[in-house]
Amino acid sequence: MVYKQEIEQYFRGLQKQICNGLEKIDGKEKFVFDNWTREEGGGGITTVIQKGTVLEKGAVNFSAVHGKMSDKMKSFLKLDKESFYATGVSLIMHPQNPWVPIIHMNVRYFEIDSTTFWFGGGIDVTPHYIINEDAGRFHSHLKKVCDKFHLGLYPKFKTWADDYFFLKHRNETRGIGGIFFDRLNSFENLKADDIFKFVQEVGNAFVPIYSELVMNNINKSFTDAEKQWQYLRRGRYVEFNLLFDQGTKFGIESNGRTESILLSLPPQANWAYDYKPISGTKEFETQQLLKKGINWIK
Amino acid sequence: MVYKQEIEQYFRGLQKQICNGLEKIDGKEKFVFDNWTREEGGGGITTVIQKGTVLEKGAVNFSAVHGKMSDKMKSFLKLDKESFYATGVSLIMHPQNPWVPIIHMNVRYFEIDSTTFWFGGGIDVTPHYIINEDAGRFHSHLKKVCDKFHLGLYPKFKTWADDYFFLKHRNETRGIGGIFFDRLNSFENLKADDIFKFVQEVGNAFVPIYSELVMNNINKSFTDAEKQWQYLRRGRYVEFNLLFDQGTKFGIESNGRTESILLSLPPQANWAYDYKPISGTKEFETQQLLKKGINWIK
Repeated sequence: MVYKQEIEQYFRGLQKQICNGLEKIDGKEKFVFDNWTREEGGGGITTVIQKGTVLEKGAVNFSAVHGKMSDKMKSFLKLDKESFYATGVSLIMHPQNPWVPIIHMNVRYFEIDSTTFWFGGGIDVTPHYIINEDAGRFHSHLKKVCDKFHLGLYPKFKTWADDYFFLKHRNETRGIGGIFFDRLNSFENLKADDIFKFVQEVGNAFVPIYSELVMNNINKSFTDAEKQWQYLRRGRYVEFNLLFDQGTKFGIESNGRTESILLSLPPQANWAYDYKPISGTKEFETQQLLKKGINWIK
Repeated sequence: MVYKQEIEQYFRGLQKQICNGLEKIDGKEKFVFDNWTREEGGGGITTVIQKGTVLEKGAVNFSAVHGKMSDKMKSFLKLDKESFYATGVSLIMHPQNPWVPIIHMNVRYFEIDSTTFWFGGGIDVTPHYIINEDAGRFHSHLKKVCDKFHLGLYPKFKTWADDYFFLKHRNETRGIGGIFFDRLNSFENLKADDIFKFVQEVGNAFVPIYSELVMNNINKSFTDAEKQWQYLRRGRYVEFNLLFDQGTKFGIESNGRTESILLSLPPQANWAYDYKPISGTKEFETQQLLKKGINWIK
């Protein structure tokens, strides 16, 4: 049996752990903290880093909110209950260098009462340029985290991420995926407290995973054309987050804190009409890999 | 009684008229035309101008599509009918100079059969910097167009625009509004062919309206800080179009041509965390005017 106080405390600590880790990665800028409260109950801490050496814009949100379920929340969650409690950490990093990928992580817990509660979350990576070796190592890391608990987790959550992080109007995945799960409170022989341990393992994996992705690529120089490509890829990121992302939709519908919800948006994004990379270029190769069902672990 | 062939022909001509007018306004770049067909029936002409002197990015779309109503279209339109026909012109201009406003116009006709059909559309303006005199002249122009047909049109459609072009998560209107109408096939003593004449009047008003707004402001010099503010305002435009715009939603849901639907997105948009203009600045004054219910005609 898990207790929400314990979960909330873990998430609070996770936010600090991640901000510390990312400040070390950036080496220059520090996170700025904003405490906020929610009129209807609860609040959070939004932390932002902007114009860093490595991180052009990044945010790590912690929140623990509670209160009445509005009609919109009820219909969104398909749950006809009166009150809820939700806590989680959500982060997104937009790096300066187009060779360093965008990363997103979310771990969360939702509770109605002692019988209706679940965990959700995942980690996924959106490279501006897909590098097969990085993608393989990233997925191997996630698989290792999952396999510790149950061999069925990684295949299920990897497929779930492929399906979720998908721009149907572009027929493109957002990036190389990762893992995604929702409404999880048991799995085969795993019980709620095992799931909580799994969620902690996911949260704790973030700093080593992103450190490696940054270190592998941060010393690569880049051209203006490569930076322009990054801006176009960020445009796709904006499209996904505003058109499809359920967290954004839930946040907007539940009257969440707009500046915290929309921190996922990049510092700058561009759109060009019907831009198609020329066959054989690195940009073209990346676009060819934005597909569901790729087995990145060779 | 109106005939869809006649309406479609008017819209085809309107696209040309507007492209010609805008090319004169820009003075340098020309529109590039893209003909496309829709697998399920019909097609369109997408025209784009990019990197002009006046117009950083602009698009005028014409389309005339028909076919089976998909389940998503049925639920979106709340209409349980088997097939549809839709034609219209939709445009958006993102100017280079932040003193020149963004403008959007849409005129459209939707038909199921001889008893179920309607017009929709409107014109609205999103200044990066609101200039009261420009706003007044713009609304006066629209009122004159409406008053020719019925004195009840402008008040109704002005309020409709205020309500429609609203970012609820920001508690901001998109700009100074304009007029907006939908599912219109009669109004008081006006019948379908009067409504078609009204829609033509709206379409024909575009070039003179935007010419005036451009001419009033194009010779104003601007600073880098003003350009940065423009990028932030464009960020809000992206938020509206992807989170709330019904045309975008309908386009994505009905499997429309993505590159034509998303041409409303600006060439570049920026987001900064919790940016608040300082009290007393021009940026602050503009933000204070992003409210419903302002009577711009003094």
